[in-house]
Amino acid sequence: MNIAVDAMGGDHGPDVIVQGALDAASELGVHVTLVGLEDLIREKIGHRQADGNVTVHHCEEVVEMDESPLKAIRKKPDASIRVAFNLVRDGNADGVVSAGNSGATLAAGILTLGRLEGVERPAIASFVPRERGRVILIDVGANVDCRPAHLFQFGVMGNAYATACLMMQDPKIGLLSIGEEGSKGNDQVRLARELFEESRLNFVGNVEGRDIFSGDVQVVVCDGFVGNVALKVTEGMGQAMTSMLKEELNRSLMSRIGRFLSRKALRLFSQRLDYAEYGGAPLLGLKGVAIVCHGGSSPRAIRNGIRQAAVNVENQVLDKMSVELNNFRDFMV
Amino acid sequence: MNIAVDAMGGDHGPDVIVQGALDAASELGVHVTLVGLEDLIREKIGHRQADGNVTVHHCEEVVEMDESPLKAIRKKPDASIRVAFNLVRDGNADGVVSAGNSGATLAAGILTLGRLEGVERPAIASFVPRERGRVILIDVGANVDCRPAHLFQFGVMGNAYATACLMMQDPKIGLLSIGEEGSKGNDQVRLARELFEESRLNFVGNVEGRDIFSGDVQVVVCDGFVGNVALKVTEGMGQAMTSMLKEELNRSLMSRIGRFLSRKALRLFSQRLDYAEYGGAPLLGLKGVAIVCHGGSSPRAIRNGIRQAAVNVENQVLDKMSVELNNFRDFMV
Repeated sequence: MNIAVDAMGGDHGPDVIVQGALDAASELGVHVTLVGLEDLIREKIGHRQADGNVTVHHCEEVVEMDESPLKAIRKKPDASIRVAFNLVRDGNADGVVSAGNSGATLAAGILTLGRLEGVERPAIASFVPRERGRVILIDVGANVDCRPAHLFQFGVMGNAYATACLMMQDPKIGLLSIGEEGSKGNDQVRLARELFEESRLNFVGNVEGRDIFSGDVQVVVCDGFVGNVALKVTEGMGQAMTSMLKEELNRSLMSRIGRFLSRKALRLFSQRLDYAEYGGAPLLGLKGVAIVCHGGSSPRAIRNGIRQAAVNVENQVLDKMSVELNNFRDFMV
Repeated sequence: MNIAVDAMGGDHGPDVIVQGALDAASELGVHVTLVGLEDLIREKIGHRQADGNVTVHHCEEVVEMDESPLKAIRKKPDASIRVAFNLVRDGNADGVVSAGNSGATLAAGILTLGRLEGVERPAIASFVPRERGRVILIDVGANVDCRPAHLFQFGVMGNAYATACLMMQDPKIGLLSIGEEGSKGNDQVRLARELFEESRLNFVGNVEGRDIFSGDVQVVVCDGFVGNVALKVTEGMGQAMTSMLKEELNRSLMSRIGRFLSRKALRLFSQRLDYAEYGGAPLLGLKGVAIVCHGGSSPRAIRNGIRQAAVNVENQVLDKMSVELNNFRDFMV
C-alpha cells in the first residue's frame, strides 16, 4: 500500500504535511510518497527519516491557493498534485491525499484518472459528527455552480459510498433546503427534488440545516457552495463553543473544580468535535482513491487523511462504487 | 407601544404564540394585539386574560406553512399576517411579530407597508452568538434566488442596522464564500464582490463559514438560501453539542460530580447557544418594524421577539436606517 501525498498543499506549507506523513508511515505501516520540491521536503524530514516507509518524489511546480484551478492544472504539468495523480495512474501509488487547493485536486484527478462511469461531476463527501453515528454531506466544495442533475448525481454517489464503504443499508438521502415542504428552496433544489422523487433512492425529501445533526437521514445532498459553508460553520462553531465552555467553567472556583473532575469527559467532548480526528473527505467519482484534507490541517489531520485513503483502498471502494453506480445508470445524466 | 402578533403562525400553532404574547404583555409592559381567529385565541388565553395589555383582533384567514407565499398573500386579504401589517399601516400598531411562513411575512410586509427608499429586496438579519459580541448574518431566508446587486443591498442594510441600531461604528462587512481569495466562490459572489469593492462600505472581502464565529467581521452577507442553511446548522449543532456534552459528563461518577459543581456554568453555556434568548430576526427594508421568529419558537422566543420589536420601535430604527440608506444611495440599484 502506497499513498501519494501532495507535500506542497495546505495553508501551513510542507512542514505540517511532512510531519503528518511521517507519523502515518511510522504509526500505520503505510508507505507514503511525498510529492513536491525534493530539497524542501528533505529539509523538513531532517533527521526523522528513519525507515524505508517514506519516499520523496520530486516535481518542479506547485499550484497556489489563489490560482484558478483549471488553468493552473493545464499550464503546470509538473505540479505536485498532478504528479501525485500520475503515480496512481501509472500504478505506482494506490491513492492520493491533498490539503491543497481542492479545485485543483479535482481538476488534476479528472484530467489524470478520469471519472467513474455515469459520473459527470465528482464531488467531495464529508462526515459531520453528531450524537449518534455520522452523516455524509455531499458536495462540500468541488462544484460551486450546479445544475439539478448534478445534485442528483451527488445523491447517487453518496448512496453508493454509504452502502459500499460504510456498510449502511439503504441509507436515507435528504436534499438540503430551507424548509421541508417541496415548495421551499431555490429553483435548483426544487428541480433536483423531482429527479430524486422519480428515482429508486431512499429519498426522504428536503431536510434543513439542523437536520444534519438531528434528522433521521444518513446522506445530505447540496451544492458545493452551500455544503462548504455548512461544513465550515460546524468547524467554526465547534471551536467557538469549546472556548465558550472553557470560559464559563473558569468563572468560579466551584466550576473550576467541576471542570477538573470532568476533565476526561470534556476532553472526549472536544475530540468528538475535532475535525483532525476525521482526517479528510473522500473525493468521489474519480477512477482512483483521493482524500481532500482541510487547507488548515494539523499533522494529525494529515495522518488521519492518509489512514482514510488506505482504508478506502483496502476496502476496494472503487469497485464497489462502480457496481452501485451501475445500479442507478438509468437515472444518471 | 403596541405590537401586532400573528397568532396563527408557527409550527406549534397559537398555543405557544399566545403564551409568549401574554408573557411579554405582563412582563415587559408592552401592549400586544393578537391577530387571528378570535375564538381560538380566546380559548388559548383562557383565564390568563388579566390586564388590559392584550387585545384580540379577529381575522378569517391564515397562510399555511406549505403555501406559496406570494399567491397566498394575494388571494387571502384577511390573512392574519396581512391584517397584522394593516394595523401598522393604519397607525394602530407600531410593529409586527410573526413566527409564520417567512416568505408570506415578507410578501405581506411589502404589499402593505412598502419598502424603504433604495431597497429592492428586504432581507432578514439574524444574530449569531459567538465568543465576543455578535455577528449579523443577512439574508437568512427572505430571498433564495439573488442577483449580485441584491447581495450588495443586503450589505448596505446590514451596515445601516449595525450602525443605527447596534451602535457599531463603521462595522466590517464580509461576503460569505468558500475561500478568502477573490477567485473563489460562485458567479453570484464573484460579481457581488466587485460591487462591494467599489463602494464606501468597510468591506473586508470574502469570509468563510468559520469566520462567522471567529473572524473580525460584524456583518456577514449571503443569499437567503445559504444564510438559512448556515443559521439552521448553528441551531442544530448547538442542540446536538449540548446533548453530547451531557452524555460525556454522565459517563462516570467523577464527571457527574464535576457536572453538579459546574451546573451554573453549564447552564450559562447552554443559554449562550439558545436561540430563544435572542427571540427573532429583524426583517429589514420595510417601511415598518417587523420581527420574524423561528417557526419552532418557544413562548420565551416569542416573548423576546416582541421585546425586540419594541426596542426597535423605541430606538427609531426606521428613521435611522433611512438616513443610513440615503448615504449609500449612489451605490444602490
